[in-house]
Amino acid sequence: MRVRKKKWALPYMQDHPDFAVLEPGRYRGQWASRFANPQAPIHLEIGSGKGQFIIGMAQKHPDVNYIGIDLEDSVLAMAVKKAVNAGLKNVQFVLTNGGDVADLFEKGEVQQLYLNFSDPWPKKRHTKRRLTSPNFLTSYQRILPADAPLEFKTDNRGLFEYSLVSLNNFGLQFERVNLDLHHGNAEELAANVETEYEEKFKEKGPIYKIRARFPD
Amino acid sequence: MRVRKKKWALPYMQDHPDFAVLEPGRYRGQWASRFANPQAPIHLEIGSGKGQFIIGMAQKHPDVNYIGIDLEDSVLAMAVKKAVNAGLKNVQFVLTNGGDVADLFEKGEVQQLYLNFSDPWPKKRHTKRRLTSPNFLTSYQRILPADAPLEFKTDNRGLFEYSLVSLNNFGLQFERVNLDLHHGNAEELAANVETEYEEKFKEKGPIYKIRARFPD
Ligand SMILES: C[S@@+](CC[C@H](N)C(=O)[O-])C[C@H]1O[C@@H](n2cnc3c(N)ncnc32)[C@H](O)[C@@H]1O
Ligand SMILES: C[S@@+](CC[C@H](N)C(=O)[O-])C[C@H]1O[C@@H](n2cnc3c(N)ncnc32)[C@H](O)[C@@H]1O
Repeated sequence: MRVRKKKWALPYMQDHPDFAVLEPGRYRGQWASRFANPQAPIHLEIGSGKGQFIIGMAQKHPDVNYIGIDLEDSVLAMAVKKAVNAGLKNVQFVLTNGGDVADLFEKGEVQQLYLNFSDPWPKKRHTKRRLTSPNFLTSYQRILPADAPLEFKTDNRGLFEYSLVSLNNFGLQFERVNLDLHHGNAEELAANVETEYEEKFKEKGPIYKIRARFPD
Repeated sequence: MRVRKKKWALPYMQDHPDFAVLEPGRYRGQWASRFANPQAPIHLEIGSGKGQFIIGMAQKHPDVNYIGIDLEDSVLAMAVKKAVNAGLKNVQFVLTNGGDVADLFEKGEVQQLYLNFSDPWPKKRHTKRRLTSPNFLTSYQRILPADAPLEFKTDNRGLFEYSLVSLNNFGLQFERVNLDLHHGNAEELAANVETEYEEKFKEKGPIYKIRARFPD
């Protein structure tokens, strides 16, 4: 997400250590302790941007703990700010790269993974930067238990085409594919929490979604 | 495909035994002998309808032998007629059900499979009638060698969503997914041979396509 660099971003997150984690490895194996309800499962979003999705999810599902990670401090700080203002006790934010999740979490510490409107990296030579490419999937698998669900939404046709092949080839078990989330099943739409990008692009063309499970 | 019953259909096919096979099991293990070039690989289309696709393919790829099967004599006869008129020596038509391919072919007798605009059967209780449902895939697997490619095109969103899940769950290896064949890669479009339904519906919305390989 391209936003102007915000000078207040890092200091603001430093001032809110109950919401923002700037040393990613520090709570490895102990993330549960960061939440009001340490028994609840932890769901992770990589590339959480300004946080609309994960904060919406945290409000809709108080029985789940959420962690959002992003590598841009300027967008992450906006997400942190929303969580602070809403006084949420079931959401945490971490400044780091999605490829490094194995340094953050022990295997099984996170039960579910979300990717939303990940950067498309359309050029072939940038394939490895896509969050659904095999190296990233390998990193996710290192922290997820067998059968853990991944949910991925995007408006980007090329990225979704690529991801269907990549997830299949990696051995994920597809549960549901939706090729036009906003013109389909009413139940699925009622359960849906929109992201910033989704809100912006849902009128311009189809939003694609897949739910799939990691192999053992 | 709903067409008016054609009284001339069966007699016409009986009159052209070099093109149309009405006793499906008769050439099991001997299909090669039905073609001018018995060495060429055989590619099969199930639900070939009026034959525009398979005849186009036969003309474009004289080095491949094609068999089209359909269970409606009235549409199959129209395909046969086109092949007769074009004097094609590398295409055959069989009146039968796609679920019965194992009675028609020995394992390995067919090297590649096409499904185009298969009937969508949108109701849940009709799932088993979809040509990409597990029972059909099991039948196809019985005649195909390991790694044999399947290509499937449709304009029907629900059927394509279902098929992505079904093919994945069956263990097919995805090679390429295209979510809007007619507004994409120029190379793919140049290689594409249109079906009757595709010609009719390509302006109305996206044509979806997948190419995937059967498991061992
Ligand atoms: C296009 S934005 C989408 C934001 C939000 N998920 C949405 O749907 O509105 C992609 C976000 O992913 C972040 N991002 C990109 N690559 C990342 C990576 N390797 N690790 C963590 N975050 C990443 C970007 O900084 C940006 O905030
Ligand atoms: C919607 S039409 C599509 C025809 C053509 N493939 C096209 O793309 O224009 C579906 C065709 O599949 C045939 N069909 C449906 N179920 C079949 C089955 N189980 N076995 C063989 N053919 C079948 C129908 O008779 C019909 O001709």
